Amino acid sequence: MTPTRTEAFSDGVFSIAATLLVLDLKVPAANGDLLSALTHLWPAYASYAVSFLTIGIIWMNHHTIFAHLRRVDRPLQVLNLMLLLVVAVIPFPTAILATYLESGHDQTAAGAIYGLVMTAMGVSFGSLWMYVLRHDALRRTLISPARKRALLVRFAIGSPIYAAGIGLAFVSARLSLLVYAALAVYYLVEPLPSEIGERHEQPATDIEVGST
Amino acid sequence: MTPTRTEAFSDGVFSIAATLLVLDLKVPAANGDLLSALTHLWPAYASYAVSFLTIGIIWMNHHTIFAHLRRVDRPLQVLNLMLLLVVAVIPFPTAILATYLESGHDQTAAGAIYGLVMTAMGVSFGSLWMYVLRHDALRRTLISPARKRALLVRFAIGSPIYAAGIGLAFVSARLSLLVYAALAVYYLVEPLPSEIGERHEQPATDIEVGST
Amino acid sequence: MTPTRTEAFSDGVFSIAATLLVLDLKVPAANGDLLSALTHLWPAYASYAVSFLTIGIIWMNHHTIFAHLRRVDRPLQVLNLMLLLVVAVIPFPTAILATYLESGHDQTAAGAIYGLVMTAMGVSFGSLWMYVLRHDALRRTLISPARKRALLVRFAIGSPIYAAGIGLAFVSARLSLLVYAALAVYYLVEPLPSEIGERHEQPATDIEVGST
Amino acid sequence: MTPTRTEAFSDGVFSIAATLLVLDLKVPAANGDLLSALTHLWPAYASYAVSFLTIGIIWMNHHTIFAHLRRVDRPLQVLNLMLLLVVAVIPFPTAILATYLESGHDQTAAGAIYGLVMTAMGVSFGSLWMYVLRHDALRRTLISPARKRALLVRFAIGSPIYAAGIGLAFVSARLSLLVYAALAVYYLVEPLPSEIGERHEQPATDIEVGST
Repeated sequence: MTPTRTEAFSDGVFSIAATLLVLDLKVPAANGDLLSALTHLWPAYASYAVSFLTIGIIWMNHHTIFAHLRRVDRPLQVLNLMLLLVVAVIPFPTAILATYLESGHDQTAAGAIYGLVMTAMGVSFGSLWMYVLRHDALRRTLISPARKRALLVRFAIGSPIYAAGIGLAFVSARLSLLVYAALAVYYLVEPLPSEIGERHEQPATDIEVGST
Repeated sequence: MTPTRTEAFSDGVFSIAATLLVLDLKVPAANGDLLSALTHLWPAYASYAVSFLTIGIIWMNHHTIFAHLRRVDRPLQVLNLMLLLVVAVIPFPTAILATYLESGHDQTAAGAIYGLVMTAMGVSFGSLWMYVLRHDALRRTLISPARKRALLVRFAIGSPIYAAGIGLAFVSARLSLLVYAALAVYYLVEPLPSEIGERHEQPATDIEVGST
Repeated sequence: MTPTRTEAFSDGVFSIAATLLVLDLKVPAANGDLLSALTHLWPAYASYAVSFLTIGIIWMNHHTIFAHLRRVDRPLQVLNLMLLLVVAVIPFPTAILATYLESGHDQTAAGAIYGLVMTAMGVSFGSLWMYVLRHDALRRTLISPARKRALLVRFAIGSPIYAAGIGLAFVSARLSLLVYAALAVYYLVEPLPSEIGERHEQPATDIEVGST
Repeated sequence: MTPTRTEAFSDGVFSIAATLLVLDLKVPAANGDLLSALTHLWPAYASYAVSFLTIGIIWMNHHTIFAHLRRVDRPLQVLNLMLLLVVAVIPFPTAILATYLESGHDQTAAGAIYGLVMTAMGVSFGSLWMYVLRHDALRRTLISPARKRALLVRFAIGSPIYAAGIGLAFVSARLSLLVYAALAVYYLVEPLPSEIGERHEQPATDIEVGST
C-alpha cells in the first residue's frame, strides 16, 4: 500500500476539521451594538485561532512524516485513523471552551477538556511518529539510533507541556489557552520536523541495519 | 477512465462524512455543571466513535479495492456512487441514535434505523466488491476461482452480522451499538483486505483466463 | 495551466456539496413516535437522494470532460467556477423543497426554485461543455464536426427537460421532483459521456483541422 | 518538501470554505409567502456570490503561484497557513454582512468587518506572493528585477482598493459590497496571474542571478 491515498484521506480530515471551526463563530443577533457584541466574542476568536493553527501544525508534521514513508502497513493505518479521530473532534472542545469563556461559567472544566483533547492529539501524533521511527522498512530514509533517541527526547519534551495545560486550567482557563497559543507559535517557528526532512536529502550518511 | 479521480471524489465524501459527525456533538448550555452534562452525552460520544471508525474502515477497504483497479467503468461508477450516498448519510442515523439514547425515548427504533444504514453500507460495499471480483478486465490482479469463492464467503459472513444488529436493537439499542463497535475493532485488526493486497504483489502466480 | 489542480478544487466542491446535503436531514424531537416522524420526513429523503445523485452525475460528466483536456485556460476556469457556484448552492433549494413539501405550504414556489437551480446547473454545465467542444487546442482528442453537432444536440435535448421541471412545479412540486429523479436515473444508465470517452481511446480516426 | 501536499491541504480549505458559505442561506419558515421571503434574502445571496467568487479567484491565483514552485520551505508554509486561516474565516463575516444588511441594523459595522477580512485576505495573499517573488531558489522560473517591480506595483494597486472598501462601508455597506463584487469580476477577467504563468513557458529569456 502506497501512502498516497492515506495522505488524501488525512488531508481531507485535517482541512475539513480546520475549516469547520468557523461554524463555532456565531453571528450576534441584529438588535444590539455589533462591535461590542463581537468584542465579547474574543474567546471564540482566540480559541478558533489556536485550534486552527494547531491543526495546521499537526498537518505540516504529518506531511513531513509521510514524506519519509515508502509504504503504509495496517498498524500505521490504524494509528493514523486514531490521530484523525482526535483531530476531527477538535471543533467540539473548541466550541465548549469558547462558550464557557464567554459566559464565565465553569471555565476550569472547559479549559481542562480542551487540554485533554490537545493532549490526546499530542499522544496519538507521538505514537504515529514513534511507530514510523521504529519501523525502518516503512521509511525511505535511514536514521541512526542516536538520532532516533534525540528525536524521541524532543517529542518527550512536547507532550508533557500539552498535558500541563490541563493542570493550568485549574488556575485559569485563559492562561491555559495562552499556553496552547504559545505552543502553536513555537512549533510554527521551530524547525523540529524539517530536521528529519533534511536527513531525507542526505540518505547515505549514517546507515543503520536491522534495528528495532 | 482511470480510477484516480473516482478516488479523489470518494476520498472527499469519506473524509467529509467522517468529519461532519462532530457537528452532532452539542455544547451543553453554559448554566449547569459542564462535567455532569458531558457525562450524560456518552451515547453521542460512543456513536460518534463507532461511526467514525466504521467510515474509516470502509475507506481503508475502498482504498484496497481501488489499488487493484486498472480502470473504472460506468456500472462501477454507479455502484460506487450508491456506496457514497449511504456513507454520506451516516451522520443522520448517528445523530438519531445519540439523541434517542440520551433521552431514553424510543431507543429500539433509533437503534434499528442505525443498524439499517450500517447494513445498507455493508451491502453496497459488498456489491462493489463482488463487481470488482467478477470483472477481471477491470483489475490489474489475477485472482483464482477458488480464491474468489473464499473472498466472497468472508464477505458473506460479515454482512449478516451487520443485519443482526438491527434485530439486536429490539433487545437493546446499546447492545446493538456495542456489536457495531466490536465489528469496527474486529475489522481494524483483521487483515481481510490486505490479503487481496498481497496478491497484488504476486500477480503471476495463479492465472485465470476468461472467467465470468 | 494543467487541469490537475482545477480538478482537485472541483472534486472538493462536488464532494462537499454532496455531503453537506445530510445537514438538511433533521433529527425529530425525542418526544413522539420516531418511526412515524421519519415517515413524514420522506420529502427530505427524496430530495436528498435526487440532489445527491444529480451532483454525483454532474461530477462524473465533469470527470469525463476533464479527461479530454490538455490544458485549462482562463475562460474555462471562469466557466468552471460558475458551475461550481451553482453546485455549491444546491443544498439550499434542496432544504427549501424538503421543508415546504413536508409542511404542504407554498409547494409550487419551492418546486420552481429547485427547478430553477437545477436548470442553472444544466446551463452552466452545458456552457462548459460547449466551450471545450469548440476549443480544439484545449483537448487531447479530435472530434469531427458531425460528432460535435451530435453531441450538442444531445445536450440540447437534456437542458429543456431540466427547464420543464420548473413549469411542472406549477402542476405539482412532487411530480417535478419525480422528473428530476427520473433524469438522474436516466443519466446514470445512459452512456452519453462515455461515448466521448471512447473517442479518447481512438484519437487518430477522424481528424479535424482548424475548426472554430 | 514538494508543493503537492501543501496544495492538497490548501485546495481542501479553499473548497470547503467556499462550499460552507451555503450554510449561511437560511430556509424561510414555512408559514409565509416563500417568494417574498426569498426576495428579502437578497443581501444573503449577494454576499454569498461575492464571497464565493472571491475565494474562487484567490484559489486560482494560489494555483498560479504554486505552479511556479519547485519546493516549499517553512516560512512559506507559515505564510500559506496564515492565508488559509483568513480564507477559512470568510463564511463568518459573510454571515454577519448578510444578517445585518437584511435587518437594516448596524450595517456600517457589518460592512467594515467584511471589508477588514477581505483586506486581511488581500494582505496575506500579497505576503505569500512577495515571498515567492523574492526567493528565487523556491521557483522553477526566472523573473527579471524589472518584472518583479512591475508585479509588485500591480499588487500594490489591488490592496488599497480592498482597504478602501472598509472606508466605503461608512458611506454605505451596500456600496462597499458592490466594490468587492466589482473587484471579483475584474479579477475574473483580468489576466494578472496568467502573465506570470506565461513567463513559466519561456524560462530561458531573461536570467537573473543571485538577487535577494
